[in-house]
Amino acid sequence: MEYIKHAMIATWKMSLDGMHQAYEDLFVKDDRKAALLTAITDVENNPDYHYVGYGGFPNACGIVETDASYMDGNTMQFGAVAGLRDIASPIAVAMELSGKTKDCFLCGEGAKQYAVEHGFESKEMLSNYACQQYKQHRKSIMEHDTVCMIAKDSVGLSCGVSTSGLPFKHPGRVGDSPVIGSGFYCDSLVGSAAATGNGEDVMRGCLSFSVVSFIKAGMDVQKACETALFEHLDRLKTAGYKAGDISLIAMDRYGRCGVATDMKQFPFVMMDDKHPDASVYVCRNENGTMHIQKADEQWLSSWQGD
Amino acid sequence: MEYIKHAMIATWKMSLDGMHQAYEDLFVKDDRKAALLTAITDVENNPDYHYVGYGGFPNACGIVETDASYMDGNTMQFGAVAGLRDIASPIAVAMELSGKTKDCFLCGEGAKQYAVEHGFESKEMLSNYACQQYKQHRKSIMEHDTVCMIAKDSVGLSCGVSTSGLPFKHPGRVGDSPVIGSGFYCDSLVGSAAATGNGEDVMRGCLSFSVVSFIKAGMDVQKACETALFEHLDRLKTAGYKAGDISLIAMDRYGRCGVATDMKQFPFVMMDDKHPDASVYVCRNENGTMHIQKADEQWLSSWQGD
Repeated sequence: MEYIKHAMIATWKMSLDGMHQAYEDLFVKDDRKAALLTAITDVENNPDYHYVGYGGFPNACGIVETDASYMDGNTMQFGAVAGLRDIASPIAVAMELSGKTKDCFLCGEGAKQYAVEHGFESKEMLSNYACQQYKQHRKSIMEHDTVCMIAKDSVGLSCGVSTSGLPFKHPGRVGDSPVIGSGFYCDSLVGSAAATGNGEDVMRGCLSFSVVSFIKAGMDVQKACETALFEHLDRLKTAGYKAGDISLIAMDRYGRCGVATDMKQFPFVMMDDKHPDASVYVCRNENGTMHIQKADEQWLSSWQGD
Repeated sequence: MEYIKHAMIATWKMSLDGMHQAYEDLFVKDDRKAALLTAITDVENNPDYHYVGYGGFPNACGIVETDASYMDGNTMQFGAVAGLRDIASPIAVAMELSGKTKDCFLCGEGAKQYAVEHGFESKEMLSNYACQQYKQHRKSIMEHDTVCMIAKDSVGLSCGVSTSGLPFKHPGRVGDSPVIGSGFYCDSLVGSAAATGNGEDVMRGCLSFSVVSFIKAGMDVQKACETALFEHLDRLKTAGYKAGDISLIAMDRYGRCGVATDMKQFPFVMMDDKHPDASVYVCRNENGTMHIQKADEQWLSSWQGD
């Protein structure tokens, strides 16, 4: 089997610019953590993306609250923040917390206090556009496009996640993104997975840990994503509950990627040694069968989402 | 195989009184949720237990912050709170949140706001004793005795967890207790598990979901607990990290129980149809082999912990 030294995969088309910027971190510096920080902060800083960082839709009280996480698959250490206010880069705080043995998952005021004390940039995260949308109270907005990224360098895997969560959510709502095993999981000896979509439904199945467990049991990474997602949706159906709008990305320890979605289509971004120019791909779901293709010009110009 | 209609298992000796009180809920009313509420609130209200509810040790700022969760294994719905202040019964709030499809996991101020708006009793959770200990700043206190309970009635399984978390923790610190898959998991078609001990290490292995996955794969419930715990500790050892002080309880869909610990001994409480008088048992760990016995008078009179 071919050995892939460097690889990176991310949810949604919005990750493309950041992944281009992360080229040097990953391929030249061989630093997966730096690559994830570069690429995810690009998404966080972009006001045009309304589900991540600055410009994200606020909670029911008009305040942007962010969730983020980072996990290193070599040390198995992780850091996470939930309900974080007024801090420019939630992923940077999660990365800092991942260096701690205790108190590595912080929420609310305590998370903000930690970030301020450790010199992270303060920022009013509500953009004018998001504020206007909040005032019009567009309840119809029920998307939730979290940025999730997994990167492999020559020594291991790591993953990072950042989101402003469900638009107009209850203050303090914690989605799956900062919840280890649900929004993210990473073990360099096995693989890594991350989730975007309906956080409550993702959590009910611990989907990221589930994907990694299937890889560990010998399943290939693509099959592991599909099995984790659709077995879980079946289980919820048995419970009398219609769940959905979930997409998963994963990478095994060899740098091979997998994706699954129960939506009609789910765009993601990839680059690796053989394809160092990051590109958008689309995973199309036809009755539970995934069809993955590179996005062509027509698709790129017609895609309305993030 | 014998069919067990009613069964309940809980961490630590402190659960004994509450489980006695839950007798009628479980065996007469056949209501596992009511049984969990009765038994867990008894522990929460007792000022002598310093890791759960009222009387729990405060955070680094001298404020008691609680985490709690509830999951119904039939509906797969769950509710959780993290960093909750000034609310008498965290488990009651988690139960209420488990009825919601969205926003079922709340943290910090938002969690408190929800509890107050929904009529849950407000309470100053810092006891005089815990306040004195805080002022003396006894850093030596590093225990973390979370109350976790699993109950089975004639139609399914549920589990509940409540804790004030790590003594003198960073404000906003989220432990494993409100984190689905780590502190708790429940699927009535498979089984349920819950964890007490070092929350950060529990989370790195998603231990409750891991136990349930092993049961699903065909392992008996006792073996599933041991495998999940010791495989995870081995993985962390490989990562160069010495983890420990973790105990797990579990119940399969037939009402059979399992426990595992890496401490020298771990007390827990059980009752079921054949043994309706709740009793304390001790799981002794001898080099990774679990020896489980009913606690005798000598043990009960000599036990210093919760």
